[in-house]
Amino acid sequence: MNFLLNDFLVKKHIEYALLEDIGYGDISTDFIADDNKILNIELKTREDGIICGLSVFRMVFQVLNPEVCVEFFFKDGDRIKAGDVIAKIQGSQRSILTGERLALNYIQKMSGISTYTNLFVEKIKDYKAKIVDTRKNTPCFRMFEKYAIKVGGATLHRFNLSDCVMLKDNHIAACGSIAAAVKKVRDNISHAHKIEIECDTKEQVEQALEAGADIIMLDNMTLDDMRDCVELIAGHAIVEASGGVTLDRIADIASCGVDIISSGALCNKAQTLDLAFDYIEC
Amino acid sequence: MNFLLNDFLVKKHIEYALLEDIGYGDISTDFIADDNKILNIELKTREDGIICGLSVFRMVFQVLNPEVCVEFFFKDGDRIKAGDVIAKIQGSQRSILTGERLALNYIQKMSGISTYTNLFVEKIKDYKAKIVDTRKNTPCFRMFEKYAIKVGGATLHRFNLSDCVMLKDNHIAACGSIAAAVKKVRDNISHAHKIEIECDTKEQVEQALEAGADIIMLDNMTLDDMRDCVELIAGHAIVEASGGVTLDRIADIASCGVDIISSGALCNKAQTLDLAFDYIEC
Amino acid sequence: MNFLLNDFLVKKHIEYALLEDIGYGDISTDFIADDNKILNIELKTREDGIICGLSVFRMVFQVLNPEVCVEFFFKDGDRIKAGDVIAKIQGSQRSILTGERLALNYIQKMSGISTYTNLFVEKIKDYKAKIVDTRKNTPCFRMFEKYAIKVGGATLHRFNLSDCVMLKDNHIAACGSIAAAVKKVRDNISHAHKIEIECDTKEQVEQALEAGADIIMLDNMTLDDMRDCVELIAGHAIVEASGGVTLDRIADIASCGVDIISSGALCNKAQTLDLAFDYIEC
Amino acid sequence: MNFLLNDFLVKKHIEYALLEDIGYGDISTDFIADDNKILNIELKTREDGIICGLSVFRMVFQVLNPEVCVEFFFKDGDRIKAGDVIAKIQGSQRSILTGERLALNYIQKMSGISTYTNLFVEKIKDYKAKIVDTRKNTPCFRMFEKYAIKVGGATLHRFNLSDCVMLKDNHIAACGSIAAAVKKVRDNISHAHKIEIECDTKEQVEQALEAGADIIMLDNMTLDDMRDCVELIAGHAIVEASGGVTLDRIADIASCGVDIISSGALCNKAQTLDLAFDYIEC
Amino acid sequence: MNFLLNDFLVKKHIEYALLEDIGYGDISTDFIADDNKILNIELKTREDGIICGLSVFRMVFQVLNPEVCVEFFFKDGDRIKAGDVIAKIQGSQRSILTGERLALNYIQKMSGISTYTNLFVEKIKDYKAKIVDTRKNTPCFRMFEKYAIKVGGATLHRFNLSDCVMLKDNHIAACGSIAAAVKKVRDNISHAHKIEIECDTKEQVEQALEAGADIIMLDNMTLDDMRDCVELIAGHAIVEASGGVTLDRIADIASCGVDIISSGALCNKAQTLDLAFDYIEC
Amino acid sequence: MNFLLNDFLVKKHIEYALLEDIGYGDISTDFIADDNKILNIELKTREDGIICGLSVFRMVFQVLNPEVCVEFFFKDGDRIKAGDVIAKIQGSQRSILTGERLALNYIQKMSGISTYTNLFVEKIKDYKAKIVDTRKNTPCFRMFEKYAIKVGGATLHRFNLSDCVMLKDNHIAACGSIAAAVKKVRDNISHAHKIEIECDTKEQVEQALEAGADIIMLDNMTLDDMRDCVELIAGHAIVEASGGVTLDRIADIASCGVDIISSGALCNKAQTLDLAFDYIEC
Repeated sequence: MNFLLNDFLVKKHIEYALLEDIGYGDISTDFIADDNKILNIELKTREDGIICGLSVFRMVFQVLNPEVCVEFFFKDGDRIKAGDVIAKIQGSQRSILTGERLALNYIQKMSGISTYTNLFVEKIKDYKAKIVDTRKNTPCFRMFEKYAIKVGGATLHRFNLSDCVMLKDNHIAACGSIAAAVKKVRDNISHAHKIEIECDTKEQVEQALEAGADIIMLDNMTLDDMRDCVELIAGHAIVEASGGVTLDRIADIASCGVDIISSGALCNKAQTLDLAFDYIEC
Repeated sequence: MNFLLNDFLVKKHIEYALLEDIGYGDISTDFIADDNKILNIELKTREDGIICGLSVFRMVFQVLNPEVCVEFFFKDGDRIKAGDVIAKIQGSQRSILTGERLALNYIQKMSGISTYTNLFVEKIKDYKAKIVDTRKNTPCFRMFEKYAIKVGGATLHRFNLSDCVMLKDNHIAACGSIAAAVKKVRDNISHAHKIEIECDTKEQVEQALEAGADIIMLDNMTLDDMRDCVELIAGHAIVEASGGVTLDRIADIASCGVDIISSGALCNKAQTLDLAFDYIEC
Repeated sequence: MNFLLNDFLVKKHIEYALLEDIGYGDISTDFIADDNKILNIELKTREDGIICGLSVFRMVFQVLNPEVCVEFFFKDGDRIKAGDVIAKIQGSQRSILTGERLALNYIQKMSGISTYTNLFVEKIKDYKAKIVDTRKNTPCFRMFEKYAIKVGGATLHRFNLSDCVMLKDNHIAACGSIAAAVKKVRDNISHAHKIEIECDTKEQVEQALEAGADIIMLDNMTLDDMRDCVELIAGHAIVEASGGVTLDRIADIASCGVDIISSGALCNKAQTLDLAFDYIEC
Repeated sequence: MNFLLNDFLVKKHIEYALLEDIGYGDISTDFIADDNKILNIELKTREDGIICGLSVFRMVFQVLNPEVCVEFFFKDGDRIKAGDVIAKIQGSQRSILTGERLALNYIQKMSGISTYTNLFVEKIKDYKAKIVDTRKNTPCFRMFEKYAIKVGGATLHRFNLSDCVMLKDNHIAACGSIAAAVKKVRDNISHAHKIEIECDTKEQVEQALEAGADIIMLDNMTLDDMRDCVELIAGHAIVEASGGVTLDRIADIASCGVDIISSGALCNKAQTLDLAFDYIEC
Repeated sequence: MNFLLNDFLVKKHIEYALLEDIGYGDISTDFIADDNKILNIELKTREDGIICGLSVFRMVFQVLNPEVCVEFFFKDGDRIKAGDVIAKIQGSQRSILTGERLALNYIQKMSGISTYTNLFVEKIKDYKAKIVDTRKNTPCFRMFEKYAIKVGGATLHRFNLSDCVMLKDNHIAACGSIAAAVKKVRDNISHAHKIEIECDTKEQVEQALEAGADIIMLDNMTLDDMRDCVELIAGHAIVEASGGVTLDRIADIASCGVDIISSGALCNKAQTLDLAFDYIEC
Repeated sequence: MNFLLNDFLVKKHIEYALLEDIGYGDISTDFIADDNKILNIELKTREDGIICGLSVFRMVFQVLNPEVCVEFFFKDGDRIKAGDVIAKIQGSQRSILTGERLALNYIQKMSGISTYTNLFVEKIKDYKAKIVDTRKNTPCFRMFEKYAIKVGGATLHRFNLSDCVMLKDNHIAACGSIAAAVKKVRDNISHAHKIEIECDTKEQVEQALEAGADIIMLDNMTLDDMRDCVELIAGHAIVEASGGVTLDRIADIASCGVDIISSGALCNKAQTLDLAFDYIEC
């Protein structure tokens, strides 16, 4: 399950983030902390949710001090309930006090995304449709967001511009027609890559089908139109619905028979999960 | 108003983000785009809000191609109404198609934060209290978030751990008393830095006052307790209220007479602002 | 055609390479060069081939000195003949003398790959099969090598491990069967990604087909077996031949009816193209 | 023998290369790999050659996972025969599957260079002449190439532009004469650095000698001219032959009595060595 | 006391510095060193002083080889006397020979600054005034210099431009008056930050006081003027004296009753401390 | 004369240094500065000296804002007198106020080194001996220090450990004898590199000569011993004197007939040159 979070990339991100958060030094802690004093902490949740980002949380402390110990009672993707103890942390006063905020920043944001994503997943669990994300991310934070979305039960859309073709209005306009655009691209790209076409109308869907699109996106269509298009496509391409995806509306979209529902909301409307970092007596 | 957004730092962030978003190349665009074809775009808003991040939006395109032209009709901090045209963009097909998503990712997220922040600002505009942010940020995205919060009308708390002391329970416990902690730190830090103390009770507030704290944070206190503490402190320290800051409750907190209200929500509960990137005929 | 070579990535690579090649300074040139003295150079070829890397060649000089002028008489992918003048370079003595070797290192290596690749392309031009590359690259030089392979007339396989699944013996062994491996992966990956399966035997090909593989690789098979497999697959998956691909044998492989022939040789057996950097009188 | 390959530089190169090769994650492996499953591999050679790059090969896996064990049966520079087992690798499924290709990319390329270099070395082993490399390298891969050339039995020319002066036609033209160029440079450079002069004719050789050159390069001369120049120089400078160095011709060049024969071919005409990464049952 | 020297930042600095000092490899050592030969060294001082930089000294060797052992007989800030053995180092020949110079470069420079700083500290130990540094640093070496100044017994001024306001002539001129400048800035900055005003005259001091400055700098004033200003300010702001701070004059300045004396000399006039790296027989 | 200061390396150094000095933003300037207000400054010297670092000084401002104009009235290496106007700077208020300190930090430190170096140069101008620097530098600041030393009239020793061999006691001990050490190294290094041997006694000098050393360093010898060694060496190697090099003693050392005198003092005992950055009315 550690897909997307290669240690050396995560470590590099944490180092930049520590630099951002520590600046020249932790002037509240550095003159007070006793390196021989060991603190014990419980990471608890104040809200129900899906926990995500445990290994990142731990690595923040370990970049500061490899001797900090973090024991987990859950694993990424587990459902947690208000009051649950998620982890115990044991380490020197300085490492704990300096690293606490950044470790929480990662795990609260990631858990917030997993938790919010999971609400969508639950709504459509009785349909074949899967919910996926988009490229609407926080710049330089994508790997954490995509990981959290996956952990929340969704699957993922392409990672970036180089691993799947998506042709929109303007790409098509540049070539004159869907057929011409697909041909131009197919002649050039890898056989290992798919082509997706964004369609606003049934006419476009027909053209996309004929052009051999691997994935057809129904962009901002009515439920009726989506149903018609699913029938039209009849399994000859993957059908992706996009636009206006809300918790209220997602089941209706899924009921149209689409394969995939994509939404930027998983990432952009999620809020942080409320976790507590409680110092305990030993 | 370009405080926090030094060009060379922003440029470096954009370069990493482009690498993240482009990967090996934009396979939807690269074989289709005609470098001599110039596109014209209007950046519009679909929601009311506060616009923020214009210079970052422009720089995304200019890192890709210095010849892209972006003309603005608003400036950061301006109030925009659904339908307003915020900017016109003119540039080669390739730069526009490849850069569009990332440029929007920055400006929508930043504008979302400014807009949300401004709701809090408006609620307390008749009080002396100012709303400020916290260190609860997205790792490696802090400069954009702090900038957006400032643009939204709030002011800022310390940037990171090195520019203001904040003593919490554990710092104090490590020294035995508030007095001892303040003395230990004051003997070591720069005279250019302030000391803030987090207090849960009136007793702690008294001790903090006596120890000469520059800022006293009232952590999760009731309105009555806050009022008492403001009276107790009587201008001898800056009074900061923290904890449970919501849109509903902020005016009540301000009415207690505190100087500063700090909240992580400005950043962590904000959602992206809905902007449209419309290709126009010329 | 500038796919894969985004300016800011190329520039960063050149900066590292200049650091590698210049070290602390060009002690042969720095005390001799007169910044007001302009040199004129012709880049010529001593061999027939396919030219590739012109924009990289130019950028080396422009990183050293933005005022160096490079005019091209060919474009990437053009066929050049021994004696052809490919470019004229005009710039200050120091920039030219210091940048010459690195600029040539890029363009000779890239042109060598394009030229060698094109030999394979020519051999199969009458077949539907396309030749593609592999991940057998020079570490940290992949974007230039893949670009050169594309310019030489081949198409490309996946860029890296994140943009297409390829299941080999060990992946399959880990899951017990092809069917199980495909299911496990399909349940987790993006709908935007394809699955390729490496098969050594016809039995494996049958299982891969049944499992719904998008691409089936025939690994080191005899021509007869390849023909059988093409027939067996019958267009239900893309057929890729791999292993033992030489200039002598490639047409035979293509004649089996496969769609794709992949070979690491395009990159690993190519030699540099012999170009001359001739200083001319003006 | 670990000269040129400082661990922290190699590690940084590997991290960039992993980023290049892994992208967002290894989607073939990440959902399948069982971190508790240990794989055993034998690295074998399918060709005779000189092995080179063992420590780099090992470090690729250890950057991914410090617990991977790699045991070597040869050391860099050893002669290996088709079928020889070079190393045993033991590690978790994920680390092995993800790191395999990159580890091979380094070691096959380096061993290819050492092997090819050694062919030249063998040809002249009965002469005093040594074969050296040039600055004709793959950009950003020089330390690996120079190391492999050394391991193959050659010695090295200067590392980069800052550690030995080499004056070519244009440097000399800029000063008016060899004498003037040498004086200008000698007055400015470190006493720790040598001066080499590229000569096309015997007249130039005479001038270079008189100017006190430390090294005189005979550029593209006939064998007769080289013999004459060696006699003329008579040990007062190191004599380097360059140009047209092939396996067929190198012994003839050496027989002219030169001290050094330099050739870019060691690096640019070498091909990768064919190694096998065999999964074994335990 | 490890404030300012976070391990991961120091390590990154050392890696750049090693790259700077080692270049492609240590050609004096690499072919001679026997990795199994262990050397024993004593780090001694040839001068009296304050030792500083022990952890940095050790880390240089440990970046090269984690197995090098360094035992200290003093800690940062200790007073050492000519002849004292400061540390014993035990490690492989290669690591010791290659790292020696860089390790000494850090510790000699840092100890030189601590030692020189301490001379100032001693001169004013009977006054309440503290000596602080400025932003007059060696670019990219500030954290080491500020740390050494602190270790030498001084305290520090702001770290950089973002953690304390300092208004000079030109800032004030830009706003029309001290009052206007303070208001403009106070309205915008964090409540966590202080404002310092540079004053040349008593009139300016009065204006600064009235404007509510937190710190008032008396710039290049006579002793008499300083005394007057201290009286005038009467504890309502921190008083900082600056300009013309020498060892001869500092006690006189302190006697004026100022709180803080700032000087760039601590860093810019310090010389390296003379330490010896003695190889010993075992 | 721009040797050692390649623009792209200098620019990268400045970017790090700006980050170090600016942190999150210049809170003194950012809210006050008017981007349309142009300031005029004169860079003057308050001391006599040698000016050095003009291009670095200018680049600091231009990284902040490419439109800042800097006109020079001197060039690097020129002798300046107290009161001389060295440069005029014209640029927007913000760029000037924010960049001033860092620009001065570079140029004052570099000019200090050039000025101090020149004192040594003057002392020995009537001798053939040249003064050179050592590897005793400020970590990560070497290129600026070496450049300044060269500009001050000295020449340079090797840049780093990879461009000249220097064998010290321990290298020799590791091989058993000077002869063995030189042979071991000569067999392995490039013919483009020299070998220097550090000698404490005449016996060692004799052995070094016999072993064919290119440079012989007389380490901490008396004047008499140095004279004897010069005679002994008789032009068969470059003679370098080292140890105890002071302004008082350097002419005596030079009078012994040595070729080179090396000293770390050029860099480590130099102080910054006192320059003034005067805002002028227009």
